[in-house]
Amino acid sequence: MQDSKATVETPDWLDEIRWNADGLVPAIAQDATTGDILMMAWMNAESLRLTAEEGQAVYWSRSRGKLWRKGETSGHQQVIEEIRLDCDEDVILLKVEQKGGIACHTGRRSCFYRRLENGKWAGVDPVVRDPDAIYGNKQGDSSNE
Amino acid sequence: MQDSKATVETPDWLDEIRWNADGLVPAIAQDATTGDILMMAWMNAESLRLTAEEGQAVYWSRSRGKLWRKGETSGHQQVIEEIRLDCDEDVILLKVEQKGGIACHTGRRSCFYRRLENGKWAGVDPVVRDPDAIYGNKQGDSSNE
Repeated sequence: MQDSKATVETPDWLDEIRWNADGLVPAIAQDATTGDILMMAWMNAESLRLTAEEGQAVYWSRSRGKLWRKGETSGHQQVIEEIRLDCDEDVILLKVEQKGGIACHTGRRSCFYRRLENGKWAGVDPVVRDPDAIYGNKQGDSSNE
Repeated sequence: MQDSKATVETPDWLDEIRWNADGLVPAIAQDATTGDILMMAWMNAESLRLTAEEGQAVYWSRSRGKLWRKGETSGHQQVIEEIRLDCDEDVILLKVEQKGGIACHTGRRSCFYRRLENGKWAGVDPVVRDPDAIYGNKQGDSSNE
């Protein structure tokens, strides 16, 4: 017999996703306008459902063990334009409008600001805004999870 | 005392990466020209070192438990233009030239060809080439790991 309660609560499209052993999948956030990859974080079923319902990125913080509404401290929300799924059904791609133009807790546009150059990781993208000015004494809400 | 052999064999830049419990990190492949996200797969230290040395994407196939030179069957290699690291040192971004214009084992340009529309995953990107024509009877070498 089916558990009708669970059937009602979980949209079918969530059932198609192959969650890992921890019930999570990686979610890549891409700037819908520029194509820049902003960050990668993790989602559980609830965070992905809320992302779709609210139209803003909601991740699962592995370190804090709780839902993490991107931008809840910084104001740098990610407004959803598209949610995509890969061929293996185990990676999510979000195309977003990045509020404030800053995704990274370091105050940079993207978390991928280091490039391998001559055997070293070189920081190649500028800090747009001082993180202290963004967060004050609060914990950063970017991918520093 | 340090193990001098290991010190010699492992480039310092690899030591900065925070591998997961399985010794892996996610690696996102992005088309360097169009900005399209092509796929996400996994890398261990050896595959990332080889990627940098050979200038072509080498992943770690979790299902096959071995190195996976992208394009070894299909010819659809990914030539490396940049290797980037995120702020948490646990995700790799590859900017690549995608040979053949096809990254996905389904014969599509990108593995992220499904979009959430009205509560369903809708295929929105076309098959560029029939997978049977790409792989014949061989196992696909795309992200169908």
